[in-house]
Amino acid sequence: MIRIGILGYGNLGKGVESAIAHNPDTALTAIFTRRNPESIQPLTKGVQVCKADDIAKYKDDIDVLILCGGSATDLPVQTPNVAKYFNVIDSFDTHANIPQHFSNVDKAAKENGKLALISCGWDPGMFSLNRVYAESVLPGGATYTFWGKGVSQGHSDAIRRIKGVVDARQYTVPVESALEAVRSGSNPSLTTRQKHTRECYVVVEEGADKASIEKQIKEMPNYFADYDTTVNFISLEELKEKHNGIPHGGFVIRSGKTGASDEYNNVIEYSLKLDSNPAFTSSVLVAYARAVYRMSKEGKSGCITVLDVAPAYLSPMDGAELRAKML
Amino acid sequence: MIRIGILGYGNLGKGVESAIAHNPDTALTAIFTRRNPESIQPLTKGVQVCKADDIAKYKDDIDVLILCGGSATDLPVQTPNVAKYFNVIDSFDTHANIPQHFSNVDKAAKENGKLALISCGWDPGMFSLNRVYAESVLPGGATYTFWGKGVSQGHSDAIRRIKGVVDARQYTVPVESALEAVRSGSNPSLTTRQKHTRECYVVVEEGADKASIEKQIKEMPNYFADYDTTVNFISLEELKEKHNGIPHGGFVIRSGKTGASDEYNNVIEYSLKLDSNPAFTSSVLVAYARAVYRMSKEGKSGCITVLDVAPAYLSPMDGAELRAKML
Repeated sequence: MIRIGILGYGNLGKGVESAIAHNPDTALTAIFTRRNPESIQPLTKGVQVCKADDIAKYKDDIDVLILCGGSATDLPVQTPNVAKYFNVIDSFDTHANIPQHFSNVDKAAKENGKLALISCGWDPGMFSLNRVYAESVLPGGATYTFWGKGVSQGHSDAIRRIKGVVDARQYTVPVESALEAVRSGSNPSLTTRQKHTRECYVVVEEGADKASIEKQIKEMPNYFADYDTTVNFISLEELKEKHNGIPHGGFVIRSGKTGASDEYNNVIEYSLKLDSNPAFTSSVLVAYARAVYRMSKEGKSGCITVLDVAPAYLSPMDGAELRAKML
Repeated sequence: MIRIGILGYGNLGKGVESAIAHNPDTALTAIFTRRNPESIQPLTKGVQVCKADDIAKYKDDIDVLILCGGSATDLPVQTPNVAKYFNVIDSFDTHANIPQHFSNVDKAAKENGKLALISCGWDPGMFSLNRVYAESVLPGGATYTFWGKGVSQGHSDAIRRIKGVVDARQYTVPVESALEAVRSGSNPSLTTRQKHTRECYVVVEEGADKASIEKQIKEMPNYFADYDTTVNFISLEELKEKHNGIPHGGFVIRSGKTGASDEYNNVIEYSLKLDSNPAFTSSVLVAYARAVYRMSKEGKSGCITVLDVAPAYLSPMDGAELRAKML
């Protein structure tokens, strides 16, 4: 059994707990929280809930620690810190800061003979894998990533910060005609606006100036100004009823040429359609926990990413069974 | 530069030659053939064409040898033989015999400190990867592989063996409603007949009994009897004009559940749409030649498959560049 610890018991931490239950060779040993441990009721029977500050005490009880905090402030500090004591995995997803985060975590993990895998999940994660595979096997071509239809937490939060807004949900939606153009192999140049639209469902205070709120959303730089955005004002009841989930997904598509004179076109498409973004991310994290456990046993240390993990490490099957059944 | 040799100069060998030209860090050193070398005019300027029997003499001139023979009789003999002298890659695709082939090649390669990667291409190959990734990250669910629309060489050959048939092309076609059922997440049970249909384009001798030929095709055990098959009789001119290519492709789809009570559905789909089956297979082989070269340099020997290769080994980029640009 691979003994797993969870640091942070929000949506992602709860997802990891459920994913562990789907993998018979993994067991949840402890949940670490910054909240009062007594306030937490885990789903898993008999699992201990411990103070995050005490985590180092558990270093011999856990094979892989999965960090379930946020990329903005939690992980940049937490991951290098706990990589001193544990093999770790995080889902750090601020793409621009990955090289710096990698460097910090690599140093801490290497000095302590631990293995750390960062930026795991689906983007970065499964999408990254697919970008690398597709570009490697089709070197002449172009790669496109589309996201959605799915809830963007960051964009929903941005709407909530507007005065007069009670709650909001923002869906990122890929433009079907852009997807089709990419699939045709024509390698189109697509602007931000041509690739995705943004659908907002917004609950406002009574008497709020809806026209002003809609304008503020649509003109918000970085978040909405570069997109065709639709704003729908709905009741809190409708929001809770129809927009309660956190679905997401997307597409990685590469088209490229083969043949002596580039006469053949090829399209590689990878897509995800997920009812729950955090539950799927968690499921990926647990599969990679298996890989980290095995690679650590082989003596590997330092920081790695999904790009450094051979697929066989993720499967509960051994090499012979994989070759017989899966190849 | 990675120095590559090609053994066998048919469709696949020619495809490898073109793929090498698409990868600036690879160079074609020599083509080995069982035919008279003088009868072969390679596209690549200055490349030597040598007798297959002399191949061992070139063992210090080639970093990775790519075998481009057939799985039925060539590769079971050739791959273990040349793995004594070279790091090698083949596209052995008789799924049931992979364990035996692996064992034979592993012994030869290990005894001689060489690295051999077998069963590379898209199925086995890219599809295998996707089956393993999808099952590992979504352990509760079902995986489906569909092939086509594409030309099946084996089925075309089977039709050609019928008396009175001049030439034939057979397309394997996935059934759209089956694809949709799988994408819906309902995990349907699908029979062979429900998953694929077979479309045949057949040229017959003047005066041949078409009704009898159609019956022989449709009732042929293993090849056609379990499928809904359509037979179209056309002229040789039409066959050459409209059915000259070797397109192929297909889908690997997994749907599975996540969440504490399996309340979330997820669908992972990987698809390929290829104008030329051998040209794409070749392109995959050359990307894996890069991986074999690097892993061999690191001291790895014996037999491996695509499941044992971390994605980063396939890319011309180094780790830092991959993390900055691709993750």
